[in-house]
Amino acid sequence: MPTKVIKNGTIVTADRTWKADVKIDGGKIVQIGQNLSADEVLDATGCYVMPGGIDPHVHLEMPFMGTHSADNFESGTRAGLSGGTTMVVDFILPAPEQSLLEALAIWQQKSSLACSDYSYHMAITWWGEQVFNEMAEVVDRGINTFKHFMAYKGALMVDDDEMFSSFQRCSALGALPLVHAENGDVVASLQQRLLAEGNNGPEAHAYSRPPEVEGEAANRAIMIADMANVPLYIVHTSCEQAHEAIRRARQKGMRVYGEPLIQHLVLDESEYQNADWDHAAQRVMSPPFRNKLHQDSLWAGLQAGSLQVVATDHCSFTIDQKRFGVGDFTKIPNGTGGLEDRMPVLWTRGVNTGRLTMNEFVAVTSTNIAKILNMYPRKGAIVEGADADIVVWDPEREKTISAKAQQSVIEYNVFEGIKVKGLPRFTLTRGKVAIEESTVKAEPGHGEFVAREPFQAV
Amino acid sequence: MPTKVIKNGTIVTADRTWKADVKIDGGKIVQIGQNLSADEVLDATGCYVMPGGIDPHVHLEMPFMGTHSADNFESGTRAGLSGGTTMVVDFILPAPEQSLLEALAIWQQKSSLACSDYSYHMAITWWGEQVFNEMAEVVDRGINTFKHFMAYKGALMVDDDEMFSSFQRCSALGALPLVHAENGDVVASLQQRLLAEGNNGPEAHAYSRPPEVEGEAANRAIMIADMANVPLYIVHTSCEQAHEAIRRARQKGMRVYGEPLIQHLVLDESEYQNADWDHAAQRVMSPPFRNKLHQDSLWAGLQAGSLQVVATDHCSFTIDQKRFGVGDFTKIPNGTGGLEDRMPVLWTRGVNTGRLTMNEFVAVTSTNIAKILNMYPRKGAIVEGADADIVVWDPEREKTISAKAQQSVIEYNVFEGIKVKGLPRFTLTRGKVAIEESTVKAEPGHGEFVAREPFQAV
Amino acid sequence: MPTKVIKNGTIVTADRTWKADVKIDGGKIVQIGQNLSADEVLDATGCYVMPGGIDPHVHLEMPFMGTHSADNFESGTRAGLSGGTTMVVDFILPAPEQSLLEALAIWQQKSSLACSDYSYHMAITWWGEQVFNEMAEVVDRGINTFKHFMAYKGALMVDDDEMFSSFQRCSALGALPLVHAENGDVVASLQQRLLAEGNNGPEAHAYSRPPEVEGEAANRAIMIADMANVPLYIVHTSCEQAHEAIRRARQKGMRVYGEPLIQHLVLDESEYQNADWDHAAQRVMSPPFRNKLHQDSLWAGLQAGSLQVVATDHCSFTIDQKRFGVGDFTKIPNGTGGLEDRMPVLWTRGVNTGRLTMNEFVAVTSTNIAKILNMYPRKGAIVEGADADIVVWDPEREKTISAKAQQSVIEYNVFEGIKVKGLPRFTLTRGKVAIEESTVKAEPGHGEFVAREPFQAV
Amino acid sequence: MPTKVIKNGTIVTADRTWKADVKIDGGKIVQIGQNLSADEVLDATGCYVMPGGIDPHVHLEMPFMGTHSADNFESGTRAGLSGGTTMVVDFILPAPEQSLLEALAIWQQKSSLACSDYSYHMAITWWGEQVFNEMAEVVDRGINTFKHFMAYKGALMVDDDEMFSSFQRCSALGALPLVHAENGDVVASLQQRLLAEGNNGPEAHAYSRPPEVEGEAANRAIMIADMANVPLYIVHTSCEQAHEAIRRARQKGMRVYGEPLIQHLVLDESEYQNADWDHAAQRVMSPPFRNKLHQDSLWAGLQAGSLQVVATDHCSFTIDQKRFGVGDFTKIPNGTGGLEDRMPVLWTRGVNTGRLTMNEFVAVTSTNIAKILNMYPRKGAIVEGADADIVVWDPEREKTISAKAQQSVIEYNVFEGIKVKGLPRFTLTRGKVAIEESTVKAEPGHGEFVAREPFQAV
Ligand SMILES: [Zn+2]
Ligand SMILES: [Zn+2]
Ligand SMILES: [Zn+2]
Ligand SMILES: [Zn+2]
Ligand SMILES: [Zn+2]
Ligand SMILES: [Zn+2]
Ligand SMILES: [Zn+2]
Ligand SMILES: [Zn+2]
Repeated sequence: MPTKVIKNGTIVTADRTWKADVKIDGGKIVQIGQNLSADEVLDATGCYVMPGGIDPHVHLEMPFMGTHSADNFESGTRAGLSGGTTMVVDFILPAPEQSLLEALAIWQQKSSLACSDYSYHMAITWWGEQVFNEMAEVVDRGINTFKHFMAYKGALMVDDDEMFSSFQRCSALGALPLVHAENGDVVASLQQRLLAEGNNGPEAHAYSRPPEVEGEAANRAIMIADMANVPLYIVHTSCEQAHEAIRRARQKGMRVYGEPLIQHLVLDESEYQNADWDHAAQRVMSPPFRNKLHQDSLWAGLQAGSLQVVATDHCSFTIDQKRFGVGDFTKIPNGTGGLEDRMPVLWTRGVNTGRLTMNEFVAVTSTNIAKILNMYPRKGAIVEGADADIVVWDPEREKTISAKAQQSVIEYNVFEGIKVKGLPRFTLTRGKVAIEESTVKAEPGHGEFVAREPFQAV
Repeated sequence: MPTKVIKNGTIVTADRTWKADVKIDGGKIVQIGQNLSADEVLDATGCYVMPGGIDPHVHLEMPFMGTHSADNFESGTRAGLSGGTTMVVDFILPAPEQSLLEALAIWQQKSSLACSDYSYHMAITWWGEQVFNEMAEVVDRGINTFKHFMAYKGALMVDDDEMFSSFQRCSALGALPLVHAENGDVVASLQQRLLAEGNNGPEAHAYSRPPEVEGEAANRAIMIADMANVPLYIVHTSCEQAHEAIRRARQKGMRVYGEPLIQHLVLDESEYQNADWDHAAQRVMSPPFRNKLHQDSLWAGLQAGSLQVVATDHCSFTIDQKRFGVGDFTKIPNGTGGLEDRMPVLWTRGVNTGRLTMNEFVAVTSTNIAKILNMYPRKGAIVEGADADIVVWDPEREKTISAKAQQSVIEYNVFEGIKVKGLPRFTLTRGKVAIEESTVKAEPGHGEFVAREPFQAV
Repeated sequence: MPTKVIKNGTIVTADRTWKADVKIDGGKIVQIGQNLSADEVLDATGCYVMPGGIDPHVHLEMPFMGTHSADNFESGTRAGLSGGTTMVVDFILPAPEQSLLEALAIWQQKSSLACSDYSYHMAITWWGEQVFNEMAEVVDRGINTFKHFMAYKGALMVDDDEMFSSFQRCSALGALPLVHAENGDVVASLQQRLLAEGNNGPEAHAYSRPPEVEGEAANRAIMIADMANVPLYIVHTSCEQAHEAIRRARQKGMRVYGEPLIQHLVLDESEYQNADWDHAAQRVMSPPFRNKLHQDSLWAGLQAGSLQVVATDHCSFTIDQKRFGVGDFTKIPNGTGGLEDRMPVLWTRGVNTGRLTMNEFVAVTSTNIAKILNMYPRKGAIVEGADADIVVWDPEREKTISAKAQQSVIEYNVFEGIKVKGLPRFTLTRGKVAIEESTVKAEPGHGEFVAREPFQAV
Repeated sequence: MPTKVIKNGTIVTADRTWKADVKIDGGKIVQIGQNLSADEVLDATGCYVMPGGIDPHVHLEMPFMGTHSADNFESGTRAGLSGGTTMVVDFILPAPEQSLLEALAIWQQKSSLACSDYSYHMAITWWGEQVFNEMAEVVDRGINTFKHFMAYKGALMVDDDEMFSSFQRCSALGALPLVHAENGDVVASLQQRLLAEGNNGPEAHAYSRPPEVEGEAANRAIMIADMANVPLYIVHTSCEQAHEAIRRARQKGMRVYGEPLIQHLVLDESEYQNADWDHAAQRVMSPPFRNKLHQDSLWAGLQAGSLQVVATDHCSFTIDQKRFGVGDFTKIPNGTGGLEDRMPVLWTRGVNTGRLTMNEFVAVTSTNIAKILNMYPRKGAIVEGADADIVVWDPEREKTISAKAQQSVIEYNVFEGIKVKGLPRFTLTRGKVAIEESTVKAEPGHGEFVAREPFQAV
């Protein structure tokens, strides 16, 4: 690969902003300085040169009722690159009684056509001696994060006992537990009550998962992590109640992390009132969109540092797949897209409005994630020796988000019609230009698995 | 029964303090005023005439491993009267799969020798259609409060699903759910870990039930009550974590009540460090005693109104019974005495120190309880028409608490050695003098069941 | 005066609800019971018999720029009676350097035509040895509450030093300090900034007094009361920020009281955006109306007990008086009416909606006020011996509030157009029927001063 | 100056830890990488190579009652270097009515013998048009931080009005306001009360400045900053009350920073009970030491990020100077040493105990300070181009702190007897070795003023 240099740009990292060129050789950043030269020049005049985005929460080709979520590792990572995201972390979901390693093998196969680098979280979907034992091997294979579902009763959900066992195991292995925090018993019961009352439309999805139910589960997971003496990462923190539980824990010195989604930051519950069933159903995800007060809470959390990262939970379903749930909202597949839109939307609504500094933008979309998941500064940094996962960000480029022009294979986009200002001029994955403005040069199969070391005790 | 008049005293109720005589006829207060006369005169010179105490939380003759807790309804209510408590509320504990009504019948038999009036809470120890149906009958029989154990895994514990079902049933019936709030899964796991590590003494009991575990459960029960649209009463609130959850709920307008025990207000965790196994084991109860910070929190809660009542959870075991747990703290029967001591100790540590007004003392020992349990003003009040359950309180009478002189049948007292100032001169149960200073005139069988109506929706 | 009996009603007090008749003789309640008879009968069939309302915060004939606020003691108390309020507490406002006793004499003269009973708070508008000394005499004259303005810089405002001195003096005298909590320095500065920017309309009044400014002052007053070891009463608590400060103090065991106004509970800041200058200016009061979130906070405070009473700050100005502020919002006289509307509006929006129980309604409109101001149970109670200040409340009577039909002398009403359900059938002031449905029988000069004793230390 | 290389060490910065050499030329870091060479080699085997500490809060040669605090810029910066601190920020304190620029000139003279680099905060000790105007010039001279004293009534204290004016001016100039947060009115009044009661010893100093008084002022300053739309830095945050106010502000998205002192993190109020007047008086500083609960709060704040930096408020007085206050604690000069001890003590009590990671240690002692004061990455970073202010930290070096061996000119040390593990092997100031283990090579006059640019709006 010829050497490259990104010239005339302003480097923006999580901790500073300065004018310098960035030289790349063999997929790595090899030099940062003034007046650098190389075989090829990428002109960054007027642009910010930032660590590529990392999405810590995606579901690509996720198994679902005999089929899969619509975007696979190829289209999903392509969508990510198109929006400046150069790495994704997917969730391996073992079936009941399935070996974790067997599930890992399946995921490895699915990710073979990824256009960008990726890593995995391993989900603990059942518990037993085999799981306990295999967790060590999973960590050895470079996966130091284990996901736990407190909802999806009868499917992915684990109970407090299992979660406590798994958290203690994580503590021993130097792994970080993650939780999907909603009280699954209460959700299941509310679903039945709503259906029994004749509420079967998508708006009932939101009614069945109120913020209190999320806040409770977040609070419970935090207590269990405290008892297990392990840090905790709470995925898709969507509401003040969960955020309050996180703040309360952090005020005691606990290491608890919260991950708002870009959807929850900018979209609200009124979407579910849309008269068009498809419109509403396409927004069905868990937790559901919340009201403006919760949005304010999430933004303030990013400003204060009580929430650390912004993700998407990208899990796209086609119109047809969503229609599995006509007549029964509990059957609407949960998930929305977002991989392509996270960075431009966050920049537009966060940086352009003055809520976040550019450095904070980099922190929450990339650097904090790399640190929390223990792959910093290989990822998430503009330093010599780091992977050349870089986005050259043009703060003047604008577009109106539209499904018509998106990389994702689905027919709609929950951000449809939102105007964004701030888009990639170039996106580089390990030194390769995958995106040049609207030209997509992403290569299926280019992406590699990123192994992550276990943590040292804090 | 001849008429009586309590003369020359100062009446102290939850809302005011004034000098007046109280005339009693046929077990009822019939007149309050100046210069009343009657067949018999009880002289209250220098004394406060207050509603008799109500202990909302006792376990008399509680089934335990083939035997029973040591104090039965006779000795327990005698102890209560001796300390100014004229009514107790006991918990009916159906065995697994046992009919609630059958359990009620057993309790009715046990209470036949009660010296004071009493009422019952019904525990929901299992769930099913039969329980659902019988709850209505239980309410018809005058029991409008249902207890739920979130701890005691494998025994009394119910899961979130059952609790949510039961809370919704309570809501429909106008009944009030109660919870013992501790995360039973985590407690059980901590117990096993401690035993495995060789910690088998009474101090490990406290380690196995940290405040976080109580706070979490309180928070969870509150969320479930919120979803069920029903008020909630949290028994033996012992720590800031649970109190914080209660305050947070109340700040949103929820009707949540917290019940500190007199033990948690004045005794602390250092008791479990006592070198004498018996001393420590005699203090084993759940939740365990906490540190001074938690005590401060509880007192402030009584002052602020975020906690409403003071109880005992009186459940006494003999030295021999406690010794079932030698070598395995999880086998130490849980419970301490307190019925005789609650009022003098709270007066001494609360009123004499200026923390509580006399009116607040009456509120938290009697009036608030009667209101919350829906038997006010028949109980908990000095008004015409009320039951003549009255304590004539001599603020100058003193004693040092000692097991030697107590009514309870056990050989020790957790308040041993505490000096109290403020004791009953007379305790009257429905107009009968049961206690006259140190003379006990309580009559087994005098006590009657107090039926309580269901609530109206707030 | 012939004896009277209120028959066939349901008595509702702060602590209970029961069917009984109430007999009145010589301005006092003399008997409560079944089947009472008297010279005259007031039929309360279908009605609730409640303690008459007490408004702890009114300004009648308040001196203002050489004139007075529009309602005097005659029309003001008549308005109060018309809405079920049988007592008001007004603020004596000494001029700079004026003797407190001299100011008291002026107020005594103004109140001579009051139709209902009344009491005074004494404002500490300046500080010096004379004030220090006269405070004792003021307490002797039956005024045990002293008001402090933290706003109105250059006029009524006292600084922290003066406030601390006065609070310590209150502590020594058994008096209760009250504060108007807004940071006067910041308000004055914001006013100048707004005027300089050309914002001179009534909407700028709200901009000049944001919730943060009130919360800060509340927090500061609480700290000073804590250092002075004295309880504190915060008038017109209008926002979450002040309420939060109160809750935080109460959680530490401090005795701090908060008083929402009926205006802040039901009207919001959008009123100031009204295109009609008069409409907006008529709503100008301090603190200004807030948004819905603050309303939710205040309602929850009444439910939780962290806020205790509902007042009006009745201080009415005519359209012409309000127009003093055309072109300069800082000159708009501050104040609105409300005396006639407080009880029906609170009943409609509080009791009819299920937010408050009837007993809580009585507590916050009457009983709690009487207790906090130390005149319970002479006022605020339905007990034998109490003043017969009673409202017979017809929960079915309805009207639409309209200035046209009001007792207040001003030409408008901030509650104009609000439908209320729940109105007095009779209002009695010391046994005299002052209101019988829409017939006003109030007698100027009937009202008497209510002296209040100093407090005992808590 | 010959080139240097620090070899064989592990670089620890605020964001990562890695093995690399650091090459220095002309006072700057010129290269970071493997196997670097230079004219001179500093061996860092077994050591951490970290950004030199920055103490954002010192008072050197501070004017005091006609004399000065004991350490001047020479001994003070020497002490700092000895403990790994390579830069200090001092406070310019204009006399009443004195020109800010005139005061700056005086400070420039005092700092001429500094051994390390330094910068200034300008105190706003009075207010007027001249101050308003000169603030712009002060910012032009490289001072973008303005200090405000809310205490020291009659001396340095400014009132709310002045503070609001100054904060708004800061906002316009891109400067950051700092506050000493204690309610000066209340402190002054408590001092008088204590003296009047005969409490004239050093322990009364602590009584006169309770945490509530600090929390109130912090809360007030935050509100004023909010109204002025400017970030805020609260110096010497010593207690939960102030920390709570900071957290509350940050939860709303405000940019508020808190600075615990190393003294408050490890020393407590029991020091003032020492029978030796000198011992107690030597610990007199404002705010005073607090209890263990406050310490826990401060540590948790550093962990959670709600508090950002650790300082010393170094202001040393000799035994004789302290004795000015014999018989009147208000005359004891306020201040303690700490410059030499901050880093070893924080490492020992923070890193060695597991409370803080090494990266967090660097953040709170250096990097966060440089960022907040706007001189990052010139200071506070190990990056090419940065000033070579570096500490080579030997985690195995130990000593017991003793005044006998200290650089400070005073005769005692508040940390006397504390064992520390973790000390500098080398301290470099702009590339010069100033400390090599216990050998001091610091050169008076080497230090230079660090100008800091104004901020951009967030
Ligand atoms: Zn999820
Ligand atoms: Zn997910
Ligand atoms: Zn229990
Ligand atoms: Zn119990
Ligand atoms: Zn006011
Ligand atoms: Zn007023
Ligand atoms: Zn200071
Ligand atoms: Zn200082």
